[in-house]
Amino acid sequence: MQESGETSGTYNGMSSDNIKGLVLALSSSFFIGASFIVKKKGLKKAGSSGVRAVVVGEIANFAAYAFAPAILVTPLGAVSIIISATLAHIILRERLHIFGILGCILCVVGSITIVLHAPQERQIQSVAEVWDLATEPGFLAYAVLVLLVVFFLMVNYVPQYGQTHVMVYIGICSLVGSLSVMGVKALGIALKLTFSGMNQLAYPQTWVFAFVVALDTFNTAVVSPIYYVMFTTFTIVASVIMFKDWAGQNGSQIVTEMCGFVTILAGTFLLHKTKDMTGSPSFSFPRTPKHSNMEEFDLEGAPLVNLELTHTS
Amino acid sequence: MQESGETSGTYNGMSSDNIKGLVLALSSSFFIGASFIVKKKGLKKAGSSGVRAVVVGEIANFAAYAFAPAILVTPLGAVSIIISATLAHIILRERLHIFGILGCILCVVGSITIVLHAPQERQIQSVAEVWDLATEPGFLAYAVLVLLVVFFLMVNYVPQYGQTHVMVYIGICSLVGSLSVMGVKALGIALKLTFSGMNQLAYPQTWVFAFVVALDTFNTAVVSPIYYVMFTTFTIVASVIMFKDWAGQNGSQIVTEMCGFVTILAGTFLLHKTKDMTGSPSFSFPRTPKHSNMEEFDLEGAPLVNLELTHTS
Repeated sequence: MQESGETSGTYNGMSSDNIKGLVLALSSSFFIGASFIVKKKGLKKAGSSGVRAVVVGEIANFAAYAFAPAILVTPLGAVSIIISATLAHIILRERLHIFGILGCILCVVGSITIVLHAPQERQIQSVAEVWDLATEPGFLAYAVLVLLVVFFLMVNYVPQYGQTHVMVYIGICSLVGSLSVMGVKALGIALKLTFSGMNQLAYPQTWVFAFVVALDTFNTAVVSPIYYVMFTTFTIVASVIMFKDWAGQNGSQIVTEMCGFVTILAGTFLLHKTKDMTGSPSFSFPRTPKHSNMEEFDLEGAPLVNLELTHTS
Repeated sequence: MQESGETSGTYNGMSSDNIKGLVLALSSSFFIGASFIVKKKGLKKAGSSGVRAVVVGEIANFAAYAFAPAILVTPLGAVSIIISATLAHIILRERLHIFGILGCILCVVGSITIVLHAPQERQIQSVAEVWDLATEPGFLAYAVLVLLVVFFLMVNYVPQYGQTHVMVYIGICSLVGSLSVMGVKALGIALKLTFSGMNQLAYPQTWVFAFVVALDTFNTAVVSPIYYVMFTTFTIVASVIMFKDWAGQNGSQIVTEMCGFVTILAGTFLLHKTKDMTGSPSFSFPRTPKHSNMEEFDLEGAPLVNLELTHTS
């Protein structure tokens, strides 16, 4: 992208950090999309390489958050859906409905739009700075609100509807996920700074963030485009509040990002619905970004499926 | 849109001319979308008001080209599809498939993206200036190429395939349409300047453009999303060559416009395909932008349908 940020006023080109984040997020999606196909092929030998691909993918995803804003990284998880669909078409010879192809195109077009208009990653010098961001009243209010809603759902809905209405779990996972991804990002930044010579491991804050990330591993399960939508939406909200992604952006850029996001959502929706329309045995979503490992899944009342794939980050 | 062009370097906000063009294009789409429903209701009384709505819509469309770049006005024709689908849903109680709703959302999102990133309308002081643009080597080459291809199609394909392969006619109409829309724009600019006190009617160029527009009325027919795609694409190409719409834009903005355009195309495609999937008797496209009055239409081999609605501009 030759249009650099310097010459074009408030209009942002792609910073080198954003490009790193982009490449990492895309390779993450490639590995996780591919792992799904490997897994589907069901070969015993391939099984372990499938797990390996997921591990590599999750590490790349983790690293991507260290370089680029969540608003750029998270929606790109949709790319793994495209990779998976394309590989299923080529390797497994699954027929892709014309709407599925349309869904892929929309995911690509929406991703390009978001990538071109994503904000610059905030320049951070120390994990203490991230801690300050996380403890500002705005984000604390969001975190408390999320935890209250989760608590409310767990007490009032999980016992009665947990087994029949998967939306309850999806809601809980998405909400908690939006917090733990902020932990992932904070830890990623701490490690990035440490590797570049500014040791952050002495800060207690680094270990608090590591603890949040450890909690995040409980959030492995499942699921579906609905989860993708909710998780991505809540993560963007959390990131906008905590990292103030939109502070340097004008209304036009923010609206454009939202348009790109809606386009991706439409694409994933289309791809998901498509699987009911082909003759192919099962095209399903390989993963929602980061929180992955989903299995084909019927939203109406099916129990949660938890794959045995290991889950990093 | 408070982010004005002045403060943000090369990043363009919406100029007041672009906003005028936008409002005109949207009201054009509203009238033409509504006229389609009126016509469909099939009431004798409503018939004439349907024609009136089309006339008003076409006039608004004509005026829109006088204020804003074709790259902004032309794709917004998709909005008439949404208006028509929505009114069909409300008034005719036609059920809209979920993919149809998705198609509408995509048209809206793609339109917003294009509107936000459309180039500024070139400031023109006289119709002689437009004439200079139209007679530059680049655009002349495009015009000659278009006419050669049209001639080739008419000699070699129309006699044999004209009745069976509607794509031949769609191709011809789209190509000629992209030239005549430039005439529409030139005449619109001439009239706009005349109304603002700079009489352009003394220039012979104005009358040449008026002649091109008169030819344009032969281009009324038909058709379909394919026509929409081809017509819009060729019009954008013609406008980019003649009016150099992209001269003041950076790569990121151009790519964003293209993404918005692809999103709209996906939306129209989805809306079109949807009509095969609902129980509704017939949801079809009310019109492609400007060249309008299409009837439900099967691309595979159906003859061209020419409505009796009058066609302005």
